[in-house]
Amino acid sequence: MKIELESIGTIHTEFKDIEGMPIQPTGAKGVEGKIVLDEKYAAGLKDLEDFSHIHLLYLLHKVEGYLLEVKPFMDNNTHGVFATRSPKRPNRIGSSVVKLDKIEENTIYISNIDVLDGTPLLDIKPYVPQLYEDTIDELKIGWFESNHKKAKSQKSDDRFK
Amino acid sequence: MKIELESIGTIHTEFKDIEGMPIQPTGAKGVEGKIVLDEKYAAGLKDLEDFSHIHLLYLLHKVEGYLLEVKPFMDNNTHGVFATRSPKRPNRIGSSVVKLDKIEENTIYISNIDVLDGTPLLDIKPYVPQLYEDTIDELKIGWFESNHKKAKSQKSDDRFK
Repeated sequence: MKIELESIGTIHTEFKDIEGMPIQPTGAKGVEGKIVLDEKYAAGLKDLEDFSHIHLLYLLHKVEGYLLEVKPFMDNNTHGVFATRSPKRPNRIGSSVVKLDKIEENTIYISNIDVLDGTPLLDIKPYVPQLYEDTIDELKIGWFESNHKKAKSQKSDDRFK
Repeated sequence: MKIELESIGTIHTEFKDIEGMPIQPTGAKGVEGKIVLDEKYAAGLKDLEDFSHIHLLYLLHKVEGYLLEVKPFMDNNTHGVFATRSPKRPNRIGSSVVKLDKIEENTIYISNIDVLDGTPLLDIKPYVPQLYEDTIDELKIGWFESNHKKAKSQKSDDRFK
């Protein structure tokens, strides 16, 4: 089944190159950016400013092709791509939870953003963990268990170019 | 910018109609379903079973068109679509965190699933809140503050048909 989408805006950040970037929001704490939403969607932002955090879905537009098994930035072992957050994945959709600082017309000022400048935006959802967190009893995070703290300091390299 | 995606599999659930469904995972606690991933992507599941929860991105395939302001299931006021999780949104991508029960070849058995039977899958990511949760100091959830508990019991109606 083929699906046609259209970007609804663009994410602007200080990251101009796929190398040397933070690899997760926890490594991008305090990094500011902005989203310019297409003007035709501006009315969809009503009441969004009452949320402190938003969930962005975007296209990892500089990635070509995908790998089924990858060696992610934080590990030396190979894992299935769906057990990682590697950008080189089928449909190459990225997902980040960022802080919403303020909204001015169709521009949304954000912090903790870990994406490349010029990234096409697909969706904005309010971040409301209350809607699922009572379904999570015992959390297991696989190979991230011993590695997730690396996300704070590790930067991307060229492996997914 | 036009973007072409392709579903990577199908989500199967007991929900055959867009009306009368749970509206969030918290209302679907214990509801079992399964994902049949296209066989060509099966190698991408390696090590996924070490995670207790996964983040699904999927196409809200029965939704046509979008609204910029919506009255969501849980509220009587109108909000901008990006301040809600209404399905009638540009790019109509849905997002759920579900429990992973087991994997057998290219079939993934899941719980707490709140989507329609036959939903096209776009991506599976491991659910690793550690990768962003230290960036969240003070969480504000806007209009959900007084309404999010309704998600446990409220079912969908026909408003987004």
